[in-house]
Amino acid sequence: VRLLEDRAQELRERHAIAFRITGIASRRLGWIADPNGIPRSEAISPAGAIPETRNSKHETDVRSWLADARADVLFEATALNVENGQPAVDHIRAALEHGAHAITANKGPVVHAYPELRDLAAARGKRFLFESTVMDGVPIFSLFDQLPAIRLNGFHGILNSTTNVILSEMENGLSFYAALKKAQEIGVAEADATHDIDGWDAAAKTAALITVLMLSSPHDLPVRLDQIDRQGIRGLSAEAVRAAKQEGKPYKLVCRARRVSSSGNSAFLASVRPEQIPLTDPMAHVTGTSSIVSFDTDIFPGLVITEENPGLYATAYGMLADFVRAVTASS
Amino acid sequence: VRLLEDRAQELRERHAIAFRITGIASRRLGWIADPNGIPRSEAISPAGAIPETRNSKHETDVRSWLADARADVLFEATALNVENGQPAVDHIRAALEHGAHAITANKGPVVHAYPELRDLAAARGKRFLFESTVMDGVPIFSLFDQLPAIRLNGFHGILNSTTNVILSEMENGLSFYAALKKAQEIGVAEADATHDIDGWDAAAKTAALITVLMLSSPHDLPVRLDQIDRQGIRGLSAEAVRAAKQEGKPYKLVCRARRVSSSGNSAFLASVRPEQIPLTDPMAHVTGTSSIVSFDTDIFPGLVITEENPGLYATAYGMLADFVRAVTASS
Repeated sequence: VRLLEDRAQELRERHAIAFRITGIASRRLGWIADPNGIPRSEAISPAGAIPETRNSKHETDVRSWLADARADVLFEATALNVENGQPAVDHIRAALEHGAHAITANKGPVVHAYPELRDLAAARGKRFLFESTVMDGVPIFSLFDQLPAIRLNGFHGILNSTTNVILSEMENGLSFYAALKKAQEIGVAEADATHDIDGWDAAAKTAALITVLMLSSPHDLPVRLDQIDRQGIRGLSAEAVRAAKQEGKPYKLVCRARRVSSSGNSAFLASVRPEQIPLTDPMAHVTGTSSIVSFDTDIFPGLVITEENPGLYATAYGMLADFVRAVTASS
Repeated sequence: VRLLEDRAQELRERHAIAFRITGIASRRLGWIADPNGIPRSEAISPAGAIPETRNSKHETDVRSWLADARADVLFEATALNVENGQPAVDHIRAALEHGAHAITANKGPVVHAYPELRDLAAARGKRFLFESTVMDGVPIFSLFDQLPAIRLNGFHGILNSTTNVILSEMENGLSFYAALKKAQEIGVAEADATHDIDGWDAAAKTAALITVLMLSSPHDLPVRLDQIDRQGIRGLSAEAVRAAKQEGKPYKLVCRARRVSSSGNSAFLASVRPEQIPLTDPMAHVTGTSSIVSFDTDIFPGLVITEENPGLYATAYGMLADFVRAVTASS
């Protein structure tokens, strides 16, 4: 909401986009809808600031809420559910069926329901967009929209900030738990950082990239999360991390994917695990909250995108950019 | 032509694009046009293979040629003219006025005539595209089409392959002239490499990026090539290059641009010159034919694109991608 407000003038003047917020839903607030617009003070205040007079329906569901809000666009930002992508999949399906564009920062729906949601969006003439799911809001998926008739053979990179911050801080002398605490303090890690530490977040990002960018043929087999050879950083001692750094081959939690069959259908080998990276590899220099991905394509054998020290709005920006894409393409 | 043929099936099946080559023009061949299509054997053979029966008009001009060819798309690939961008500017103007999309790999028209050609294209409902002008065909300009409501404050990078190959080879022990010869042998440097060695090519790329990506307001002052503080690599001895490398601060020919006034109009400080780069900077690791650019935006303070060891088709691919953009957006 803050970024939308901050860019409201530019959206209006350069993209002819005006908007109002007609619905907010969260565990604390319940389902709030007002087609006339919810004032700024309510949209960005904590739960207690919502006046009693506001028609907050705690017992409604996403479909009624979308209808009450007369939503044209849904911003979905629930947390990752690695099992089945819910409830985000239901939220997005409901939005598209309601006739709204669906924008999510949650990898779950991409990993668990991409073909269905993509086809549903196409059938309704709406967009299903998810640029914030990988590398904050850096336009990775949109970049490949600009790479027609290219073949992506594989990729590798560092895509989880929490573990990268923890490894960097361990190199600097902190224990695993002190490093985790620091990652939580700077707002990178959740209170429950299990998904990050055990490699689930990185595996979901890897699966999302494979699913969207590499499964070109309907005959390609879909990628399931449990097919990704996944190992987190829990087994790394601070001593091992510091020794690796001193040796000039620092540990990084590396995501890798590679196409293994190129005749007809494709299959994939994919892994997420700690690797010691030589200093000649750009990944070795990516520390803290920075991230990197290197794409191997038949035209560009090494097309590398690095996001250094993302700012406060980096993830929100991906949703803002998706918003602009959705409403300008369909107008 | 080879890349177009190589991707013809994918263009047809995925993008519903069919094409035929109806005109070829070069200094050696003159102006060849045939609206029924020029056979492959003529399109990619050397000059001597053009049969005498072919109606090759050596005395015609670009406008008659476009009309004779009934061109829908022009691929313009003349060499850089740093003085005024000619004859490429005339070729592109003629194509747009004829009603064809204009695609160029030549920086001259962007540096010398961008506002005019952009507005002319818009007025005719055609596209003026130039993705191949910077970093081969890596979609740098298209990336910023995917970054709405963002502010680019500056950038720096290594954008000239010839000088980067020469510096890398000098580090490996070659003399300046032996290194230049090697760059020419691998097809990176032209027979006359003056534009590369003296920084003109890098300066033109810098000016093109500023012009297209940073001059957002009509009140912004245009950037002229002679406003870029330009110094090539001619003054660097092999000894100095090797000493810098051993010192851990290798020389690179670095392009830099920065917005200096942010209230109302913008002005720019821009330079192209050899700099000693510390190993902590990703630029220090970009050697040979690889290139890199780091963008400083208000959302992403360091968004870095690296092209490692581009393949044979990397520049041609930019024109192919522009072709797809042009004909799919307008259909």
